[in-house]
Amino acid sequence: MNTERPIGIFDSGIGGLTVVKAIQAALPFERIVYFGDTARVPYGPKSQITIRKYAADDTAILMRYQPKMIIVACNTVSALALDVVEKSSGNIPVIGVLKSGAILAVQVTKNNRIGVIGTQATVCSNAYACAINELDADIEVISKACPLFVPLAEEGLTSHSATRLIAEHYLTEIRQQHIDTLVLGCTHYPILRQVIEETIGNGISIIDSAEAVAIRARALLSDSGLLNRSQKAFIPHLLVSDLPQKFSVLYQLFMGSEQPDVDLVEV
Amino acid sequence: MNTERPIGIFDSGIGGLTVVKAIQAALPFERIVYFGDTARVPYGPKSQITIRKYAADDTAILMRYQPKMIIVACNTVSALALDVVEKSSGNIPVIGVLKSGAILAVQVTKNNRIGVIGTQATVCSNAYACAINELDADIEVISKACPLFVPLAEEGLTSHSATRLIAEHYLTEIRQQHIDTLVLGCTHYPILRQVIEETIGNGISIIDSAEAVAIRARALLSDSGLLNRSQKAFIPHLLVSDLPQKFSVLYQLFMGSEQPDVDLVEV
Repeated sequence: MNTERPIGIFDSGIGGLTVVKAIQAALPFERIVYFGDTARVPYGPKSQITIRKYAADDTAILMRYQPKMIIVACNTVSALALDVVEKSSGNIPVIGVLKSGAILAVQVTKNNRIGVIGTQATVCSNAYACAINELDADIEVISKACPLFVPLAEEGLTSHSATRLIAEHYLTEIRQQHIDTLVLGCTHYPILRQVIEETIGNGISIIDSAEAVAIRARALLSDSGLLNRSQKAFIPHLLVSDLPQKFSVLYQLFMGSEQPDVDLVEV
Repeated sequence: MNTERPIGIFDSGIGGLTVVKAIQAALPFERIVYFGDTARVPYGPKSQITIRKYAADDTAILMRYQPKMIIVACNTVSALALDVVEKSSGNIPVIGVLKSGAILAVQVTKNNRIGVIGTQATVCSNAYACAINELDADIEVISKACPLFVPLAEEGLTSHSATRLIAEHYLTEIRQQHIDTLVLGCTHYPILRQVIEETIGNGISIIDSAEAVAIRARALLSDSGLLNRSQKAFIPHLLVSDLPQKFSVLYQLFMGSEQPDVDLVEV
Protein backbone atom coordinates (compact mmCIF):
# COMPACT_ATOMS: atom_id res chain seq x y z
CA MET A 1 0.00 0.00 0.00
CA ASN A 2 1.17 3.53 -0.79
CA THR A 3 2.37 4.92 2.55
CA GLU A 4 1.58 8.47 1.42
CA ARG A 5 -2.15 7.77 1.62
CA PRO A 6 -3.81 9.80 4.33
CA ILE A 7 -5.18 8.79 7.71
CA GLY A 8 -8.95 9.34 7.61
CA ILE A 9 -10.54 10.62 10.81
CA PHE A 10 -14.21 11.35 11.36
CA ASP A 11 -16.42 12.61 14.13
CA SER A 12 -19.99 13.77 14.55
CA GLY A 13 -18.75 17.35 14.67
CA ILE A 14 -15.70 19.32 15.66
CA GLY A 15 -14.86 17.41 18.88
CA GLY A 16 -12.68 15.00 16.90
CA LEU A 17 -10.25 17.85 16.30
CA THR A 18 -8.72 16.85 19.65
CA VAL A 19 -7.87 13.55 17.91
CA VAL A 20 -6.41 15.41 14.91
CA LYS A 21 -4.25 17.36 17.34
CA ALA A 22 -3.11 14.21 19.14
CA ILE A 23 -2.36 12.46 15.81
CA GLN A 24 -0.35 15.47 14.60
CA ALA A 25 1.67 15.34 17.83
CA ALA A 26 2.29 11.58 17.59
CA LEU A 27 2.64 11.33 13.79
CA PRO A 28 3.75 14.73 12.51
CA PHE A 29 4.51 13.53 8.95
CA GLU A 30 1.18 11.92 8.13
CA ARG A 31 -1.46 13.37 5.83
CA ILE A 32 -4.81 13.71 7.62
CA VAL A 33 -8.30 13.95 6.10
CA TYR A 34 -10.85 14.92 8.73
CA PHE A 35 -14.60 14.80 8.26
CA GLY A 36 -16.86 16.46 10.83
CA ASP A 37 -20.57 15.82 10.33
CA THR A 38 -21.46 19.29 11.58
CA ALA A 39 -24.86 19.26 9.81
CA ARG A 40 -26.08 16.36 11.96
CA VAL A 41 -24.15 16.87 15.19
CA PRO A 42 -24.65 15.73 17.94
CA TYR A 43 -24.91 11.96 17.53
CA GLY A 44 -24.93 11.40 21.31
CA PRO A 45 -28.66 11.71 22.05
CA LYS A 46 -29.79 9.90 18.86
CA SER A 47 -30.92 6.31 18.47
CA GLN A 48 -28.67 3.42 17.47
CA ILE A 49 -30.37 3.02 14.06
CA THR A 50 -29.70 6.64 13.16
CA ILE A 51 -26.13 6.53 14.48
CA ARG A 52 -25.35 3.40 12.40
CA LYS A 53 -26.72 5.04 9.24
CA TYR A 54 -24.61 8.14 9.86
CA ALA A 55 -21.50 6.00 10.50
CA ALA A 56 -21.86 4.40 7.03
CA ASP A 57 -22.27 7.83 5.40
CA ASP A 58 -19.22 9.24 7.19
CA THR A 59 -17.05 6.28 6.19
CA ALA A 60 -18.13 6.59 2.55
CA ILE A 61 -17.04 10.23 2.52
CA LEU A 62 -13.57 9.39 3.85
CA MET A 63 -13.18 6.44 1.44
CA ARG A 64 -13.17 8.90 -1.49
CA TYR A 65 -9.69 9.91 -0.28
CA GLN A 66 -8.33 6.31 -0.20
CA PRO A 67 -7.15 6.40 3.40
CA LYS A 68 -4.66 3.82 4.69
CA MET A 69 -6.42 3.77 8.07
CA ILE A 70 -9.65 5.11 9.53
CA ILE A 71 -9.83 6.53 13.03
CA VAL A 72 -13.28 6.88 14.52
CA ALA A 73 -12.90 9.97 16.69
CA CYS A 74 -16.54 9.84 17.76
CA ASN A 75 -17.13 7.94 20.98
CA THR A 76 -20.78 7.39 20.09
CA VAL A 77 -19.91 5.71 16.77
CA SER A 78 -17.03 3.81 18.42
CA ALA A 79 -19.54 2.50 20.95
CA LEU A 80 -22.46 1.67 18.67
CA ALA A 81 -21.29 1.31 15.08
CA LEU A 82 -17.58 0.41 14.73
CA ASP A 83 -18.61 -2.75 12.82
CA VAL A 84 -20.47 -0.56 10.30
CA VAL A 85 -17.26 1.42 9.67
CA GLU A 86 -15.25 -1.80 9.28
CA LYS A 87 -17.78 -3.21 6.81
CA SER A 88 -17.84 0.04 4.79
CA SER A 89 -14.07 0.47 4.52
CA GLY A 90 -12.79 -2.74 2.93
CA ASN A 91 -9.71 -4.17 4.58
CA ILE A 92 -7.87 -1.14 5.89
CA PRO A 93 -7.39 -0.93 9.67
CA VAL A 94 -10.14 0.83 11.64
CA ILE A 95 -9.54 2.01 15.18
CA GLY A 96 -11.82 3.87 17.52
CA VAL A 97 -11.27 6.14 20.49
CA LEU A 98 -13.31 3.85 22.72
CA LYS A 99 -11.22 0.69 22.58
CA SER A 100 -8.01 2.74 22.62
CA GLY A 101 -9.12 4.52 25.79
CA ALA A 102 -10.15 1.21 27.34
CA ILE A 103 -6.76 -0.42 26.61
CA LEU A 104 -4.83 2.48 28.15
CA ALA A 105 -7.11 2.67 31.20
CA VAL A 106 -6.63 -1.05 31.90
CA GLN A 107 -2.85 -0.59 31.67
CA VAL A 108 -2.93 2.36 34.09
CA THR A 109 -5.35 1.31 36.87
CA LYS A 110 -3.83 -0.22 39.97
CA ASN A 111 -6.92 -0.72 42.14
CA ASN A 112 -9.10 -2.03 39.27
CA ARG A 113 -11.70 0.74 39.66
CA ILE A 114 -12.10 2.89 36.54
CA GLY A 115 -14.47 5.82 36.05
CA VAL A 116 -15.80 6.74 32.60
CA ILE A 117 -17.50 10.00 31.67
CA GLY A 118 -19.17 10.67 28.32
CA THR A 119 -22.38 11.56 26.53
CA GLN A 120 -25.72 9.98 27.40
CA ALA A 121 -25.51 7.55 24.45
CA THR A 122 -21.94 6.45 25.15
CA VAL A 123 -22.70 5.82 28.81
CA CYS A 124 -26.07 4.14 28.16
CA SER A 125 -24.51 1.83 25.58
CA ASN A 126 -22.26 0.48 28.37
CA ALA A 127 -19.62 0.04 25.67
CA TYR A 128 -16.68 1.30 27.75
CA ALA A 129 -17.52 -1.13 30.54
CA CYS A 130 -17.78 -3.96 27.97
CA ALA A 131 -14.50 -3.03 26.29
CA ILE A 132 -12.70 -2.76 29.64
CA ASN A 133 -14.17 -6.00 30.99
CA GLU A 134 -13.26 -7.83 27.77
CA LEU A 135 -9.65 -6.97 28.60
CA ASP A 136 -9.97 -7.65 32.33
CA ALA A 137 -13.17 -9.04 33.81
CA ASP A 138 -12.16 -8.10 37.37
CA ILE A 139 -12.23 -4.37 36.79
CA GLU A 140 -15.15 -2.38 38.17
CA VAL A 141 -16.32 0.40 35.81
CA ILE A 142 -18.33 3.35 37.15
CA SER A 143 -19.88 5.52 34.43
CA LYS A 144 -21.54 8.90 34.43
CA ALA A 145 -23.13 10.89 31.59
CA CYS A 146 -22.12 14.59 31.57
CA PRO A 147 -24.22 16.18 28.81
CA LEU A 148 -23.38 19.78 29.73
CA PHE A 149 -19.61 19.39 29.30
CA VAL A 150 -19.83 19.66 25.49
CA PRO A 151 -21.72 22.98 25.38
CA LEU A 152 -19.60 24.36 28.24
CA ALA A 153 -16.44 23.50 26.26
CA GLU A 154 -17.87 25.06 23.08
CA GLU A 155 -18.75 28.24 24.99
CA GLY A 156 -15.09 28.40 25.99
CA LEU A 157 -16.06 28.44 29.70
CA THR A 158 -13.02 26.34 30.51
CA SER A 159 -12.47 27.79 33.98
CA HIS A 160 -15.78 29.50 34.81
CA SER A 161 -17.25 28.91 38.27
CA ALA A 162 -20.45 27.56 36.68
CA THR A 163 -18.32 24.93 34.94
CA ARG A 164 -16.82 24.02 38.33
CA LEU A 165 -20.32 23.67 39.84
CA ILE A 166 -21.47 21.50 36.93
CA ALA A 167 -18.31 19.41 37.28
CA GLU A 168 -19.10 18.98 41.01
CA HIS A 169 -22.69 18.07 40.09
CA TYR A 170 -21.52 15.33 37.71
CA LEU A 171 -18.36 14.08 39.40
CA THR A 172 -19.16 13.98 43.14
CA GLU A 173 -20.83 10.58 42.94
CA ILE A 174 -18.12 9.01 40.80
CA ARG A 175 -15.39 10.42 43.08
CA GLN A 176 -16.94 8.66 46.08
CA GLN A 177 -16.53 5.33 44.29
CA HIS A 178 -12.76 5.22 44.97
CA ILE A 179 -11.70 5.06 41.33
CA ASP A 180 -7.99 5.57 40.57
CA THR A 181 -8.43 6.19 36.81
CA LEU A 182 -10.90 8.38 34.91
CA VAL A 183 -11.50 8.02 31.16
CA LEU A 184 -12.53 11.17 29.27
CA GLY A 185 -14.96 9.28 27.04
CA CYS A 186 -15.88 12.22 24.82
CA THR A 187 -13.55 14.09 22.50
CA HIS A 188 -14.69 17.48 23.79
CA TYR A 189 -13.68 16.78 27.37
CA PRO A 190 -9.92 17.41 27.00
CA ILE A 191 -10.88 21.09 26.59
CA LEU A 192 -12.20 20.98 30.20
CA ARG A 193 -9.41 18.70 31.41
CA GLN A 194 -8.11 21.13 34.05
CA VAL A 195 -11.51 21.63 35.75
CA ILE A 196 -12.24 17.89 35.58
CA GLU A 197 -8.81 17.07 37.03
CA GLU A 198 -9.19 19.58 39.87
CA THR A 199 -12.74 18.42 40.68
CA ILE A 200 -12.02 14.71 40.63
CA GLY A 201 -9.07 15.31 42.94
CA ASN A 202 -5.47 14.21 43.38
CA GLY A 203 -4.18 10.74 42.71
CA ILE A 204 -6.60 9.91 39.90
CA SER A 205 -5.06 9.26 36.47
CA ILE A 206 -6.88 10.94 33.61
CA ILE A 207 -7.08 8.94 30.36
CA ASP A 208 -7.54 11.12 27.30
CA SER A 209 -8.98 8.88 24.56
CA ALA A 210 -7.57 11.16 21.86
CA GLU A 211 -4.02 10.62 23.11
CA ALA A 212 -4.76 6.90 23.54
CA VAL A 213 -5.94 6.47 19.95
CA ALA A 214 -2.90 8.36 18.64
CA ILE A 215 -0.53 6.01 20.50
CA ARG A 216 -2.36 3.01 19.04
CA ALA A 217 -2.41 4.44 15.51
CA ARG A 218 1.35 5.01 15.59
CA ALA A 219 2.03 1.47 16.80
CA LEU A 220 -0.27 -0.03 14.18
CA LEU A 221 1.18 1.94 11.25
CA SER A 222 4.72 1.25 12.41
CA ASP A 223 4.10 -2.51 12.82
CA SER A 224 2.60 -2.80 9.34
CA GLY A 225 5.28 -0.66 7.66
CA LEU A 226 2.73 2.00 6.74
CA LEU A 227 4.37 5.08 8.28
CA ASN A 228 4.81 7.88 5.76
CA ARG A 229 8.52 8.19 5.02
CA SER A 230 8.33 11.82 3.98
CA GLN A 231 9.65 14.34 6.49
CA LYS A 232 7.14 17.00 5.56
CA ALA A 233 4.41 18.29 7.87
CA PHE A 234 0.96 18.55 6.28
CA ILE A 235 -1.94 20.85 7.02
CA PRO A 236 -4.98 18.63 7.77
CA HIS A 237 -7.57 18.46 4.99
CA LEU A 238 -10.85 19.52 6.63
CA LEU A 239 -14.27 18.43 5.42
CA VAL A 240 -17.54 19.40 7.11
CA SER A 241 -21.19 18.80 6.20
CA ASP A 242 -22.10 22.30 7.35
CA LEU A 243 -20.06 25.37 8.16
CA PRO A 244 -21.27 26.33 11.62
CA GLN A 245 -21.11 29.86 12.95
CA LYS A 246 -18.07 30.44 15.14
CA PHE A 247 -16.27 27.58 13.34
CA SER A 248 -12.97 29.45 13.27
CA VAL A 249 -13.29 30.34 16.98
CA LEU A 250 -13.96 26.68 17.81
CA TYR A 251 -11.09 25.51 15.58
CA GLN A 252 -8.79 27.86 17.46
CA LEU A 253 -10.13 26.55 20.82
CA PHE A 254 -9.56 22.91 19.85
CA MET A 255 -6.38 23.14 17.80
CA GLY A 256 -4.69 26.24 19.16
CA SER A 257 -3.97 27.43 15.61
CA GLU A 258 -5.64 29.34 12.77
CA GLN A 259 -8.31 27.48 10.82
CA PRO A 260 -7.15 26.34 7.36
CA ASP A 261 -9.47 26.16 4.33
CA VAL A 262 -12.39 23.82 4.79
CA ASP A 263 -14.45 21.90 2.18
CA LEU A 264 -18.20 21.52 2.43
CA VAL A 265 -19.55 18.06 1.54
CA GLU A 266 -23.16 16.93 1.27
CA VAL A 267 -24.42 14.04 3.41
CA MET B 1 -62.03 24.47 4.44
CA ASN B 2 -62.82 21.63 6.82
CA THR B 3 -62.41 23.14 10.30
CA GLU B 4 -61.55 19.73 11.75
CA ARG B 5 -58.23 19.72 9.94
CA PRO B 6 -55.31 19.88 12.37
CA ILE B 7 -52.93 22.67 13.23
CA GLY B 8 -49.46 21.60 12.10
CA ILE B 9 -46.57 22.62 14.33
CA PHE B 10 -42.91 21.88 13.78
CA ASP B 11 -39.63 22.51 15.51
CA SER B 12 -36.03 21.39 15.15
CA GLY B 13 -36.54 19.14 18.17
CA ILE B 14 -38.59 18.93 21.31
CA GLY B 15 -38.43 22.62 22.31
CA GLY B 16 -41.56 23.32 20.29
CA LEU B 17 -43.55 21.30 22.80
CA THR B 18 -43.80 24.56 24.78
CA VAL B 19 -45.77 25.85 21.77
CA VAL B 20 -47.96 22.73 21.74
CA LYS B 21 -48.66 23.37 25.42
CA ALA B 22 -49.51 27.03 24.81
CA ILE B 23 -51.77 26.10 21.84
CA GLN B 24 -53.57 23.49 23.93
CA ALA B 25 -54.20 26.11 26.61
CA ALA B 26 -55.46 28.73 24.13
CA LEU B 27 -57.27 26.35 21.74
CA PRO B 28 -58.24 23.24 23.70
CA PHE B 29 -60.49 21.78 20.97
CA GLU B 30 -58.02 21.81 18.08
CA ARG B 31 -56.28 18.76 16.65
CA ILE B 32 -52.51 19.19 16.68
CA VAL B 33 -49.89 17.41 14.58
CA TYR B 34 -46.39 18.10 15.89
CA PHE B 35 -43.19 17.24 14.06
CA GLY B 36 -39.88 17.45 15.94
CA ASP B 37 -36.80 16.95 13.75
CA THR B 38 -34.95 15.19 16.56
CA ALA B 39 -32.57 13.45 14.13
CA ARG B 40 -31.10 16.77 12.99
CA VAL B 41 -31.52 18.95 16.07
CA PRO B 42 -30.20 21.56 16.81
CA TYR B 43 -30.71 23.91 13.87
CA GLY B 44 -29.35 26.89 15.82
CA PRO B 45 -25.63 26.57 15.05
CA LYS B 46 -26.12 25.50 11.42
CA SER B 47 -25.82 27.58 8.27
CA GLN B 48 -28.71 29.31 6.54
CA ILE B 49 -28.54 26.99 3.50
CA THR B 50 -28.93 23.91 5.68
CA ILE B 51 -31.69 25.47 7.80
CA ARG B 52 -33.69 26.39 4.66
CA LYS B 53 -33.41 22.85 3.29
CA TYR B 54 -34.58 21.42 6.62
CA ALA B 55 -37.51 23.88 6.76
CA ALA B 56 -38.77 22.59 3.38
CA ASP B 57 -38.47 18.97 4.57
CA ASP B 58 -40.32 19.69 7.81
CA THR B 59 -43.16 21.45 6.01
CA ALA B 60 -43.53 18.56 3.55
CA ILE B 61 -43.94 16.13 6.45
CA LEU B 62 -46.71 18.23 8.04
CA MET B 63 -48.48 18.73 4.67
CA ARG B 64 -49.22 14.97 4.55
CA TYR B 65 -51.74 15.67 7.34
CA GLN B 66 -53.53 18.50 5.43
CA PRO B 67 -53.18 21.09 8.18
CA LYS B 68 -55.37 24.22 8.16
CA MET B 69 -52.47 26.27 9.53
CA ILE B 70 -48.75 25.80 10.12
CA ILE B 71 -47.01 27.16 13.17
CA VAL B 72 -43.25 27.36 13.01
CA ALA B 73 -42.25 26.72 16.61
CA CYS B 74 -38.56 26.93 15.79
CA ASN B 75 -37.09 30.39 16.24
CA THR B 76 -34.21 29.57 13.93
CA VAL B 77 -36.55 28.64 11.04
CA SER B 78 -38.84 31.59 11.86
CA ALA B 79 -35.80 33.83 11.56
CA LEU B 80 -34.16 32.39 8.48
CA ALA B 81 -36.67 30.38 6.45
CA LEU B 82 -40.31 31.39 7.04
CA ASP B 83 -40.64 32.15 3.31
CA VAL B 84 -39.56 28.57 2.53
CA VAL B 85 -42.39 27.25 4.74
CA GLU B 86 -44.89 29.60 3.05
CA LYS B 87 -43.75 28.48 -0.39
CA SER B 88 -43.97 24.79 0.54
CA SER B 89 -47.44 24.91 2.12
CA GLY B 90 -49.72 26.33 -0.56
CA ASN B 91 -52.13 28.99 0.67
CA ILE B 92 -52.78 28.02 4.27
CA PRO B 93 -51.72 30.55 6.92
CA VAL B 94 -48.18 30.21 8.29
CA ILE B 95 -47.17 31.90 11.51
CA GLY B 96 -43.89 31.80 13.35
CA VAL B 97 -42.89 32.32 16.95
CA LEU B 98 -40.56 35.12 15.98
CA LYS B 99 -43.02 37.64 14.53
CA SER B 100 -45.58 36.74 17.19
CA GLY B 101 -43.06 37.45 19.96
CA ALA B 102 -42.06 40.70 18.23
CA ILE B 103 -45.69 41.93 17.97
CA LEU B 104 -46.38 41.24 21.65
CA ALA B 105 -43.11 42.82 22.79
CA VAL B 106 -43.86 46.01 20.85
CA GLN B 107 -47.30 46.17 22.49
CA VAL B 108 -45.82 45.72 25.97
CA THR B 109 -42.73 47.94 26.04
CA LYS B 110 -43.16 51.43 27.50
CA ASN B 111 -39.59 52.75 27.31
CA ASN B 112 -38.93 51.37 23.79
CA ARG B 113 -35.98 49.24 24.93
CA ILE B 114 -36.46 45.51 24.31
CA GLY B 115 -34.03 42.71 25.11
CA VAL B 116 -33.99 39.48 23.09
CA ILE B 117 -32.28 36.24 24.12
CA GLY B 118 -31.97 33.19 21.86
CA THR B 119 -29.61 30.79 20.14
CA GLN B 120 -26.50 31.94 18.29
CA ALA B 121 -28.22 31.66 14.89
CA THR B 122 -31.38 33.52 15.94
CA VAL B 123 -29.36 36.35 17.47
CA CYS B 124 -26.83 36.54 14.63
CA SER B 125 -29.62 36.67 12.05
CA ASN B 126 -30.78 39.93 13.70
CA ALA B 127 -34.30 38.82 12.77
CA TYR B 128 -35.97 39.84 16.05
CA ALA B 129 -34.53 43.33 15.77
CA CYS B 130 -35.73 43.56 12.15
CA ALA B 131 -39.23 42.26 13.01
CA ILE B 132 -39.51 44.68 15.95
CA ASN B 133 -38.18 47.66 14.00
CA GLU B 134 -40.53 46.92 11.11
CA LEU B 135 -43.35 47.46 13.60
CA ASP B 136 -41.74 50.45 15.31
CA ALA B 137 -38.49 51.91 14.04
CA ASP B 138 -37.87 53.85 17.27
CA ILE B 139 -37.43 50.80 19.44
CA GLU B 140 -33.92 49.85 20.54
CA VAL B 141 -33.32 46.08 20.52
CA ILE B 142 -30.51 44.58 22.61
CA SER B 143 -29.80 40.92 21.82
CA LYS B 144 -27.73 38.24 23.49
CA ALA B 145 -27.08 34.61 22.49
CA CYS B 146 -27.38 32.15 25.41
CA PRO B 147 -26.30 28.77 23.97
CA LEU B 148 -26.11 26.99 27.35
CA PHE B 149 -29.77 27.59 28.26
CA VAL B 150 -31.01 24.75 26.02
CA PRO B 151 -28.79 22.00 27.49
CA LEU B 152 -29.38 23.34 31.03
CA ALA B 153 -33.15 23.11 30.44
CA GLU B 154 -32.83 19.60 28.99
CA GLU B 155 -30.78 18.50 32.00
CA GLY B 156 -33.68 19.68 34.16
CA LEU B 157 -31.35 22.03 36.08
CA THR B 158 -34.12 24.60 36.31
CA SER B 159 -33.04 26.06 39.66
CA HIS B 160 -29.44 24.83 40.08
CA SER B 161 -26.86 27.38 41.24
CA ALA B 162 -24.81 26.72 38.09
CA THR B 163 -27.84 27.76 36.03
CA ARG B 164 -28.03 30.97 38.06
CA LEU B 165 -24.33 31.67 37.42
CA ILE B 166 -24.77 31.03 33.69
CA ALA B 167 -27.85 33.28 33.69
CA GLU B 168 -25.76 36.00 35.39
CA HIS B 169 -23.01 35.43 32.82
CA TYR B 170 -25.44 35.93 29.93
CA LEU B 171 -27.86 38.51 31.32
CA THR B 172 -25.69 41.00 33.25
CA GLU B 173 -24.81 43.00 30.17
CA ILE B 174 -28.37 43.08 28.81
CA ARG B 175 -29.73 44.10 32.25
CA GLN B 176 -27.43 47.15 32.28
CA GLN B 177 -29.04 48.36 29.06
CA HIS B 178 -32.23 49.53 30.86
CA ILE B 179 -34.64 47.31 28.92
CA ASP B 180 -38.21 47.03 30.23
CA THR B 181 -39.15 43.95 28.16
CA LEU B 182 -37.28 40.69 27.53
CA VAL B 183 -38.25 38.28 24.75
CA LEU B 184 -37.53 34.58 25.34
CA GLY B 185 -36.51 34.00 21.74
CA CYS B 186 -36.06 30.22 22.04
CA THR B 187 -38.77 27.69 22.78
CA HIS B 188 -36.68 25.98 25.46
CA TYR B 189 -36.33 29.10 27.56
CA PRO B 190 -39.78 29.02 29.24
CA ILE B 191 -38.46 25.97 31.14
CA LEU B 192 -35.87 28.30 32.76
CA ARG B 193 -38.31 31.22 33.04
CA GLN B 194 -38.06 31.53 36.82
CA VAL B 195 -34.25 31.76 36.91
CA ILE B 196 -34.27 34.18 33.97
CA GLU B 197 -36.93 36.33 35.61
CA GLU B 198 -35.08 36.44 38.94
CA THR B 199 -31.75 37.22 37.27
CA ILE B 200 -33.00 39.93 34.97
CA GLY B 201 -34.69 41.59 37.94
CA ASN B 202 -37.98 43.24 38.84
CA GLY B 203 -39.98 45.45 36.55
CA ILE B 204 -39.02 43.73 33.32
CA SER B 205 -41.85 42.09 31.37
CA ILE B 206 -41.03 38.64 30.04
CA ILE B 207 -42.44 37.80 26.60
CA ASP B 208 -42.84 34.07 26.01
CA SER B 209 -42.95 33.55 22.22
CA ALA B 210 -44.91 30.30 22.68
CA GLU B 211 -47.73 32.15 24.44
CA ALA B 212 -47.51 34.96 21.87
CA VAL B 213 -47.88 32.60 18.90
CA ALA B 214 -50.86 30.88 20.56
CA ILE B 215 -52.66 34.20 21.00
CA ARG B 216 -52.04 35.02 17.33
CA ALA B 217 -53.14 31.57 16.12
CA ARG B 218 -56.43 31.85 18.01
CA ALA B 219 -57.15 35.30 16.58
CA LEU B 220 -56.31 34.18 13.07
CA LEU B 221 -58.44 31.02 13.15
CA SER B 222 -61.30 32.89 14.74
CA ASP B 223 -61.20 35.73 12.17
CA SER B 224 -61.23 33.30 9.25
CA GLY B 225 -63.97 31.07 10.73
CA LEU B 226 -61.58 28.14 11.00
CA LEU B 227 -61.98 27.28 14.70
CA ASN B 228 -62.91 23.66 15.23
CA ARG B 229 -66.52 23.56 16.42
CA SER B 230 -66.14 20.22 18.19
CA GLN B 231 -65.97 20.39 21.98
CA LYS B 232 -63.62 17.44 22.27
CA ALA B 233 -60.05 17.65 23.53
CA PHE B 234 -57.49 15.79 21.42
CA ILE B 235 -54.18 14.21 22.35
CA PRO B 236 -51.50 15.77 20.12
CA HIS B 237 -50.23 13.57 17.29
CA LEU B 238 -46.46 13.40 17.75
CA LEU B 239 -43.98 12.78 14.93
CA VAL B 240 -40.21 12.70 15.39
CA SER B 241 -37.36 11.91 13.01
CA ASP B 242 -35.52 10.06 15.78
CA LEU B 243 -36.56 8.79 19.16
CA PRO B 244 -33.98 10.26 21.49
CA GLN B 245 -33.03 8.72 24.78
CA LYS B 246 -34.85 10.31 27.70
CA PHE B 247 -37.65 11.40 25.33
CA SER B 248 -40.37 10.57 27.85
CA VAL B 249 -38.49 12.43 30.62
CA LEU B 250 -38.16 15.47 28.36
CA TYR B 251 -41.81 15.25 27.29
CA GLN B 252 -42.80 15.26 30.97
CA LEU B 253 -40.50 18.26 31.61
CA PHE B 254 -41.98 20.27 28.72
CA MET B 255 -45.63 19.23 28.84
CA GLY B 256 -46.14 18.28 32.48
CA SER B 257 -47.95 15.11 31.38
CA GLU B 258 -47.24 11.53 30.31
CA GLN B 259 -45.87 11.05 26.79
CA PRO B 260 -48.46 9.69 24.30
CA ASP B 261 -47.52 7.34 21.42
CA VAL B 262 -45.08 8.84 18.97
CA ASP B 263 -44.52 8.06 15.26
CA LEU B 264 -41.09 7.89 13.72
CA VAL B 265 -40.76 9.52 10.26
CA GLU B 266 -37.79 9.54 7.93
CA VAL B 267 -36.27 12.84 6.76
